[in-house]
Formats: sequence, C-alpha cells, structure tokens
Amino acid sequence: MPDKPLLDQLIDSLRCLPGVGAKTAQRMALHLLQRDRAGGARLAAILAEAMHSIGHCRSCRTLTEDEECRLCLNPERDDSQLCVVENPADVLALEQVTTYRGRYFVLGGRLSPLDGIGPTELGMADLRRRIETLRPRELILAMTTTVEGEATAHYVAEMAVDCGVSVSRIAHGVPLGGELEYVDGGTLAHAFAGRRQVNAD
Amino acid sequence: MPDKPLLDQLIDSLRCLPGVGAKTAQRMALHLLQRDRAGGARLAAILAEAMHSIGHCRSCRTLTEDEECRLCLNPERDDSQLCVVENPADVLALEQVTTYRGRYFVLGGRLSPLDGIGPTELGMADLRRRIETLRPRELILAMTTTVEGEATAHYVAEMAVDCGVSVSRIAHGVPLGGELEYVDGGTLAHAFAGRRQVNAD
Repeated sequence: MPDKPLLDQLIDSLRCLPGVGAKTAQRMALHLLQRDRAGGARLAAILAEAMHSIGHCRSCRTLTEDEECRLCLNPERDDSQLCVVENPADVLALEQVTTYRGRYFVLGGRLSPLDGIGPTELGMADLRRRIETLRPRELILAMTTTVEGEATAHYVAEMAVDCGVSVSRIAHGVPLGGELEYVDGGTLAHAFAGRRQVNAD
Repeated sequence: MPDKPLLDQLIDSLRCLPGVGAKTAQRMALHLLQRDRAGGARLAAILAEAMHSIGHCRSCRTLTEDEECRLCLNPERDDSQLCVVENPADVLALEQVTTYRGRYFVLGGRLSPLDGIGPTELGMADLRRRIETLRPRELILAMTTTVEGEATAHYVAEMAVDCGVSVSRIAHGVPLGGELEYVDGGTLAHAFAGRRQVNAD
C-alpha cells in the first residue's frame, strides 16, 4: 500500500531481513531515523548497488560484483587444491579460520531430486570444466553430512576420480572442547568409527 | 575502503542496525542475495527515501515524511486530550494497544542537564504553543519513571497547570499477570503506596 506512512513502510520492508519481526523492525527503523541517518543512507546505497550488481563468479560461482571473484583472480592462490563447498557462506567461514590457500568451487546447494535440484542446477558441468582447466592435485569435499550432502559429495568424488584427481574430505567428529556426553549420537558414532591410529614418537 | 568487495561492504554497512553483529550481518547479506533480491531492493529504495525525507511533525514532533503527521491531520481525533510522551516509539506503542483517540506531543527525550538536554532541546516552547492552540481539557503524562523522566513530567505538569489544563499521569504499578515476588522492589513499593479504594457495588 503506497498510502501507508513512510515509517510504516520502512518497518514493513525491514522484515525481509532474516530473524527480524515486527518489534525488531520498529526498533531498527527508529534507531536509524533518530540516531544514525548517515549509516542508514549508506546502507541504502550499498544495498541497492549490491542487489543490482552482485552475481556469480564465472570460475567458482561464489557471489561477487565482478566477472571473476578476488579469490579466483589472486595469482598467489594454490591451483593444486580445489575445495568444493555448498554455499558462499562456507567460503567466508573457511577463509576466516583456516590457512587454506587453494581454490574454491561453490555448488549453491546440494543434490535434492525431490526439490528439483539435480546436477545441472548445481553446475556440475561447470565444476568438471573447472577441474579440467585448473588440473588440481587434490579435490577437497566440504559438504554437510546430511543425506543430500552425502549424495552430493559422492557425485563430486566420482567426477574427480573420473578426471584423475585425488579426493579428500574434511573431518567430521566431536567438536573441539565438546564433552562426549553432550555430543549427539550420530556424531559420536561417526567419530568413533572414524578413529585414527596415534603414533607415539 | 571502496576497494573492498561489495559483499564485504554490504556486511559492514548492515552492522549499523541495532543488535546486528558480524555473524548476523553476514547471514542477512547472504539471505538477501540468495533468496530475496526483490525484498532487498525494495528495502534499499524505502530506506533511502526514509532517511532523506522523514522529519518531524510541526505540530506533535513525531516522525513523519509530511509537514504534519496523520494523527495530527485526522479530524476525528479528540482535541480535548493531549498525551505527552518521550519518543515516537511511545506513540506507536500507545496507538497499538490503547483506545486513546486524543492528540500527542513527542518531546524526543527527557530533561537531562548533564547531557545538555534542557527545556529548549525538548521543544517545551512548542509544547506550550501546542497547549495554547489546542486548548485541551486534559494533559496526560506518559513519561518513564526514571529520575529524568520524573523531572520532565514535573516540568510539563507545571506548564499545563500554568495554562489552566488539568493533568493526569498513566498508572505505574505491578504489570498485569505479574507475580508479586518477582516484581522489583521499587515498582512494588510504588504500587503499594499508590493503592486505590475499591468500591463494592
């Protein structure tokens, strides 16, 4: 309704943000109007530009406003490793906490035939092309351990083997500092079955 | 830094929202980019317009994009009652839950000499003009019960009496459904001291 007061329209439109309900949206709108108009104006400008110009990197399919993202353009990254993740958020998480210096490929989801998400939707052809161009020595799988994640990992692993690339997968197990009694059963069973020999020096 | 990727700029600028830290900002940015571009674009447009054109109503000083807000322009509101509140949020709260049909005046804060907020900053001259124009029968004080709120209420009450208007104040006491043992001491003492006679019919 364009006839609503602008303040009400602002409160309504803030609710498109995840986790923001009516009360929080009202608090945000009043905060910006009363205390941080400059921040609000900057947010509006960047948001408009981002919604309009951010697309997918043509090499790794992560989110970027350029044709190719900075990670793909960076000549110092190691071409011999390629990490396959489900979402752009996974790239950000890995970049923030690991020392990984290789390349990425973002599927944008996981195989889920019931939702109409098959190999085409996930850009498996792009991934194969990426593998053939990059010729990495190691392909690292970093999918979740849900049923769909496992199926996706299996599919990607087969493709990599087909291309003659060795495949590894990030470790799943008990989180650091996690008390065994509070870890969920599936994780604990997985960690136990996947135990490794300790070599005392 | 204009050299940062646009996604990072978006995440940074979302942090101007109250209660939004680095993780939440990232989740919001990715949600908008991956699932709700239309909502994000609409938010950007309305936010830009709101930051630019929302000002204060010349009659009641609440937030509005017009010269006078809809509550002040509404001829069906009752001119005989004037409710004085601290913030625009208070107007929204009262409108949502009460059947009050009178007028409002928004101070935009409370008297706080240490922070440099005196009668001039709160537009007390505007309030006096509003009282003289409107000639209400009753002025309703709806400030908080902090020290500054009490001082502000006292100041406004004196002005109203000076203008020959009768003054009331919203009730402070135990919240509905509140268990006495969990109510804070100040509120309970206030509620006890402010007890009212019950007239059995």
